Amino acid sequence: MKPKIAFTVGDPAGVGPEICLKAIQDPRVTHICEPVLVGALAAVEAAAALLGLAVPPNIEDVGGLDQSFLRGQVSSECGLVAYRSLMRGVDMALRGEVEAIVTAPINKAALNLAGIHENGHTEILAKATDSPRFALMLYSERLTCVFATCHQSLASVPRSLTTGRVLEVIGLLHEALHAIRGKSPRIGLLALNPHAGEGGLFGREEIEILMPAVEAARKAGFQISDPIPPDTAFLPGALTRYDGYVCLYHDQGGIPFKMLSFEDGVNTTLGLPIVRTSVDHGTAFDIAWQGRASCSSLVAAVELAVRLVGQKRLKEE
Amino acid sequence: MKPKIAFTVGDPAGVGPEICLKAIQDPRVTHICEPVLVGALAAVEAAAALLGLAVPPNIEDVGGLDQSFLRGQVSSECGLVAYRSLMRGVDMALRGEVEAIVTAPINKAALNLAGIHENGHTEILAKATDSPRFALMLYSERLTCVFATCHQSLASVPRSLTTGRVLEVIGLLHEALHAIRGKSPRIGLLALNPHAGEGGLFGREEIEILMPAVEAARKAGFQISDPIPPDTAFLPGALTRYDGYVCLYHDQGGIPFKMLSFEDGVNTTLGLPIVRTSVDHGTAFDIAWQGRASCSSLVAAVELAVRLVGQKRLKEE
Repeated sequence: MKPKIAFTVGDPAGVGPEICLKAIQDPRVTHICEPVLVGALAAVEAAAALLGLAVPPNIEDVGGLDQSFLRGQVSSECGLVAYRSLMRGVDMALRGEVEAIVTAPINKAALNLAGIHENGHTEILAKATDSPRFALMLYSERLTCVFATCHQSLASVPRSLTTGRVLEVIGLLHEALHAIRGKSPRIGLLALNPHAGEGGLFGREEIEILMPAVEAARKAGFQISDPIPPDTAFLPGALTRYDGYVCLYHDQGGIPFKMLSFEDGVNTTLGLPIVRTSVDHGTAFDIAWQGRASCSSLVAAVELAVRLVGQKRLKEE
Repeated sequence: MKPKIAFTVGDPAGVGPEICLKAIQDPRVTHICEPVLVGALAAVEAAAALLGLAVPPNIEDVGGLDQSFLRGQVSSECGLVAYRSLMRGVDMALRGEVEAIVTAPINKAALNLAGIHENGHTEILAKATDSPRFALMLYSERLTCVFATCHQSLASVPRSLTTGRVLEVIGLLHEALHAIRGKSPRIGLLALNPHAGEGGLFGREEIEILMPAVEAARKAGFQISDPIPPDTAFLPGALTRYDGYVCLYHDQGGIPFKMLSFEDGVNTTLGLPIVRTSVDHGTAFDIAWQGRASCSSLVAAVELAVRLVGQKRLKEE
């Protein structure tokens, strides 16, 4: 049976409504799932009018908006609707009304204006589902990265890294890739420092934090590399050597991921009790409400969600 | 008149001798310069025998080696020879005997064994030429990056960044790109933090250090961007928008540079009184002395050196 999937529409001022409407018309989506849009009906109606499409029947309306909402800019009204849509989607997934949620982009400034002080989807979802052990994963056919740290200053990264946290994300990545590909993955661990620390000359985190995690992970049966010098980690030869990478901070994996997978990148949160994937782009206010935003990343997110649902079903049988 | 260029052969145990010998046979090199090899004669002779080539006539022998030297591994003997070759090349350039030096790779562990405790070519050259204001630049036709910090731990990067240093590297990059391309370059400045700090939420360096540098640079007539979120800075659209980037730490520019320019990347040091370019790879002990190392990065380094010499001649006329 095709899984029912909640599409949270995200910030109504951004590209969310139009890409959701495009995606739920797309045969690549309708062949594999039964979509439900979760958001403000007013935004869905406006996007349908913009694109010349019928308003779809399956809408979970969170209200809170009329047609006067501001398109293409930050507002507290839209920030609040985005947050309520997301929370409703999470509730539906936790109650088993849907088997996964796929999320369109939210805007942090709008959330803040609405009084919601969170750093992003990942952190909101971890809190809403009471999941202490979680990590962001960026996924595409060409590159998969999981992040030990994410939405925080670069200066705070070294002190956030612990052997325990690195082991945790190694475990989360192993589990996810095993579910997606059906075999034990080969994992590449990024170094924190240039040249992997050059034997301690440019930082000791490789010696004191990363290698103990590598040794413990190997004992536990994971296939994992020594810390890799970051600048050569994403060369073509290395990309074929690893099924996925553990990255230590946002841009270490974000730079190569966007370069290799800008069109079809998927963002997902590992370690949640629910399946959740997302587009890997923002609200794109500069092109929103012009009808030209591409739904390719959203379609890729749906495809990954359906694969993860399939694995979850097998596991639960 | 073709410029005379010193090729410092680097660590004899690595790929330096063979790539130097290959490069000085290459018409792309011999058409544009008059090369002099600077290194241990024993290593050059061994490489010539390996490749079945004649020993070239223009060798500046630094001695210190016989045919028994260890190939493909770290040794203090080879570290010392590499250092002496480099110093000899610098002397030749400072005395005007050559117009540029192009350097083959050295090995930091070997230098350390030989009692030379420096972090790399860049730092050695700055010290040897008494240049307090310098920066590493990675150059190719597709991407140019200059680095505000380089061979140091990631944890030490934020406290090394100052508005003055950022302004300095903006100036160095402007000058270099102007020399290479003959017009005022458009410079992209990377942010330090994810999402360029998200308005101060993920770090305040963009607000407190980078924006003041941007404002001062614009007043001085430079074309420079606001701090760019690193993960989208190297997408195709951005690459056409900027002629070069100011990167804040080694792997921020190193990751995209190696991805885009692995074969023909050139490493150069800005701010020296001499022209110096280098290959953008290491000693590659794993493939050294097998005759199969490619000289393409070295050839690209020679081509850039010759362009920089041309601009220097024009400036000095």
